[in-house]
Amino acid sequence: MDIRKLQNKVIEFRDKRDWAQYHNPKDLAISISLEASELLEIFQWKDARQVEALKADLVSRQRVKEELGDVLIYALTLAREFDFDPTDIILDKMQINNKKYPVKKVKGKSEQ
Amino acid sequence: MDIRKLQNKVIEFRDKRDWAQYHNPKDLAISISLEASELLEIFQWKDARQVEALKADLVSRQRVKEELGDVLIYALTLAREFDFDPTDIILDKMQINNKKYPVKKVKGKSEQ
Amino acid sequence: MDIRKLQNKVIEFRDKRDWAQYHNPKDLAISISLEASELLEIFQWKDARQVEALKADLVSRQRVKEELGDVLIYALTLAREFDFDPTDIILDKMQINNKKYPVKKVKGKSEQ
Amino acid sequence: MDIRKLQNKVIEFRDKRDWAQYHNPKDLAISISLEASELLEIFQWKDARQVEALKADLVSRQRVKEELGDVLIYALTLAREFDFDPTDIILDKMQINNKKYPVKKVKGKSEQ
Repeated sequence: MDIRKLQNKVIEFRDKRDWAQYHNPKDLAISISLEASELLEIFQWKDARQVEALKADLVSRQRVKEELGDVLIYALTLAREFDFDPTDIILDKMQINNKKYPVKKVKGKSEQ
Repeated sequence: MDIRKLQNKVIEFRDKRDWAQYHNPKDLAISISLEASELLEIFQWKDARQVEALKADLVSRQRVKEELGDVLIYALTLAREFDFDPTDIILDKMQINNKKYPVKKVKGKSEQ
Repeated sequence: MDIRKLQNKVIEFRDKRDWAQYHNPKDLAISISLEASELLEIFQWKDARQVEALKADLVSRQRVKEELGDVLIYALTLAREFDFDPTDIILDKMQINNKKYPVKKVKGKSEQ
Repeated sequence: MDIRKLQNKVIEFRDKRDWAQYHNPKDLAISISLEASELLEIFQWKDARQVEALKADLVSRQRVKEELGDVLIYALTLAREFDFDPTDIILDKMQINNKKYPVKKVKGKSEQ
């Protein structure tokens, strides 16, 4: 589905509940961070082999999917508060990254 | 743009750099969390009035847009590691939220 | 109590449970971050007046105390993994901050 | 050094700069979370062997020490905002953990 249409659905869901009043950018940024932590918690104390095994575990897969959903939903909501088009957000950042990390220079090396 | 097509572009960018080897789910979840913190840092120590003013500040807008870009890019990458369709991730989570937060029960009240 | 003695108690608790095997620095850093998020969650969606009111709310006070406990316990554990004396950690960072933020320059201004 | 005395030094440093006005509990919790992320960033993309090697790397050791310092300093500041004694915070949480994780039940198993 078009990401703008997904964003519209997220905002419609929000507005039906009259939640825009709570959705100031600071609390939305807090919320993205909290949901990212709930996602990370799934991998806490897991070594490389265990992390790989999670990919085939149905319960873990569902948790990862739901927490990713929360991160994406809050990110699209914050984007709307700033009137950013989500397609622009992603493509423009990829263009910046393309200059920052030219293939010739970074191929096979970690981003850091 | 279709969110699946955006995800494909993100993965293509990654694979050109041979970065899949670093992109295990645990480090991707760490990365989403770190980028969410860089986003949150923009609002640190700001009161409600200052947060609102950031929406009209060009430098802050650009920072918010770039950090949102990083969060979305890593989220789409992690989704691919689990073979989740990003449209499903969002619509399925909205369906769960719809049951958890029925309009009649939560209208006008904070999610918490 | 001396912070070094507190750290010794934390490590003794850990070693009785044979948990050192899980306490690699990366997962300890993840754990500090996750506990910091659980602490932050207490303040999510709260405006300035509500945040102030939490200081007098017994249930919230207990949650804040417990989450601060988790942050401190994991921080002291990670310090031990690097053989840092916790007193040095704090006093040395304050010395760095003292040079970075001289009173004359920053008095009354936010750190940012 | 006694942890209460360290906390007093942290508060004295803060008050000389007139920063109490910014140090509401919500922004202090945000700050602990942001510093925890800067600590975690040191371990991003590192595998188990590389994480272990960081313990002997002087530059990484200094970064870990400074970020741990920031986490501890903000945690002690937030504790003061709630008038918690830091010794009580740690010992009381260890007592809770002692009931939650009895040695017989959890020895050698990860906390999760």
